[in-house]
Amino acid sequence: MEKKELIYEGKAKKVYSTENGNYLIVSYKDDATAFNGLKKGTISGKGVINNKMSNIMMKKLEAEGIPTHFVEELSDRDTLVKKVSIVPLEVIIRNISAGSFAKRYGVPEGIVFAEPTIEFSYKNDGLGDPLINEYHAKALSLATEDEIETIKKYSFRINKLLKNIWSSCGVTLVDFKLEFGRLPSGEIVLADEISPDTERLWDSETGEKLDKDRFRRDLGNVEEAYAEVMKRLSENS
Amino acid sequence: MEKKELIYEGKAKKVYSTENGNYLIVSYKDDATAFNGLKKGTISGKGVINNKMSNIMMKKLEAEGIPTHFVEELSDRDTLVKKVSIVPLEVIIRNISAGSFAKRYGVPEGIVFAEPTIEFSYKNDGLGDPLINEYHAKALSLATEDEIETIKKYSFRINKLLKNIWSSCGVTLVDFKLEFGRLPSGEIVLADEISPDTERLWDSETGEKLDKDRFRRDLGNVEEAYAEVMKRLSENS
Repeated sequence: MEKKELIYEGKAKKVYSTENGNYLIVSYKDDATAFNGLKKGTISGKGVINNKMSNIMMKKLEAEGIPTHFVEELSDRDTLVKKVSIVPLEVIIRNISAGSFAKRYGVPEGIVFAEPTIEFSYKNDGLGDPLINEYHAKALSLATEDEIETIKKYSFRINKLLKNIWSSCGVTLVDFKLEFGRLPSGEIVLADEISPDTERLWDSETGEKLDKDRFRRDLGNVEEAYAEVMKRLSENS
Repeated sequence: MEKKELIYEGKAKKVYSTENGNYLIVSYKDDATAFNGLKKGTISGKGVINNKMSNIMMKKLEAEGIPTHFVEELSDRDTLVKKVSIVPLEVIIRNISAGSFAKRYGVPEGIVFAEPTIEFSYKNDGLGDPLINEYHAKALSLATEDEIETIKKYSFRINKLLKNIWSSCGVTLVDFKLEFGRLPSGEIVLADEISPDTERLWDSETGEKLDKDRFRRDLGNVEEAYAEVMKRLSENS
């Protein structure tokens, strides 16, 4: 399948139509942004790593019964995916306090929660992706009650599966963001990507950050961190 | 029972200890603030109205099986209440879009929801009372799962009861804020107040705002609005 038209360019990916209306090609870029686009940069090789890592994860999740948009890896940066209508809710699962959570509630990073938490943001750049709860999402018809229940069920299961995968790589899964989409049939499937752009990953021994926070917080060794988690995942897959 | 020591002065109320360690006296002021204290003013007579209105409502809710902190009205501005440890979650129930909800999600005011929504804010002035969900509240040990379930159950029942009371006064209950406290026994009871400071009330015929939004938005006739809803409630009680 080949790229036809560029139909969308996001912060980290381009999306192309194909000759088949049910499929799209996602092309991963090295561009990185943070703080709702205020910080911009490049992480050399990131597109290749995120493409391959996300595909490994999607395949593992599919094998465990989580439906995803993944179809086939086409090249280092390009992947064929099912065309979905994105549910305008970003899902964040947290195992340990960090990032916006720690800032918003005035608590330190690193608090290990007894149970994972889930939260939703309304995917709307103009409004700054505001936090939204299930009642509001339903009131604004962003998703149905059934869709939200499905998304929650999948998200907590994905957390368990990803935690195990990363644990066997000596990496602690702190938190991550998911996006879901609707197939034409109405079925909810996992979409977007699973990568160090969308997960917080800490070395289980040293606590070293191995994710996009190295870029956000100017910690240096950004490329090395992406390469390191990719290496560990490849060796353990 | 008489006031002993001023133990807390809030934006709209003073709280005094009494000779009995299980009771406090709340004294309602005419002071009004908005936008997390950025706007300040006085609404003449508000303290008397809020004291009396809140007590009428608390008594009605008690009669319907909702436990509250209310004990006895002592004077125009003073009420004896049970001493509670406040659960640091502000509860907001919405029947119609308005205020911060409309702004946060970029929707007009006046959307009537199919079902009421509930949301929690973390009661913390320094952090700006940020929105928080049930998972986060539990992760931060702000309340237990049982307490949150109890608070939700009471809040939705209170909404039904208040909607009916206001409806019979020709007033539409748009949204309102509640606070709950723990008695020494651990029992959860409704605390704080129920007044035009904490409820959005619109005239059912004309849509005219009859609440603190007249102060927040400089709409004029602030005192008159408070007096009007108090009059209607008194005539229908």
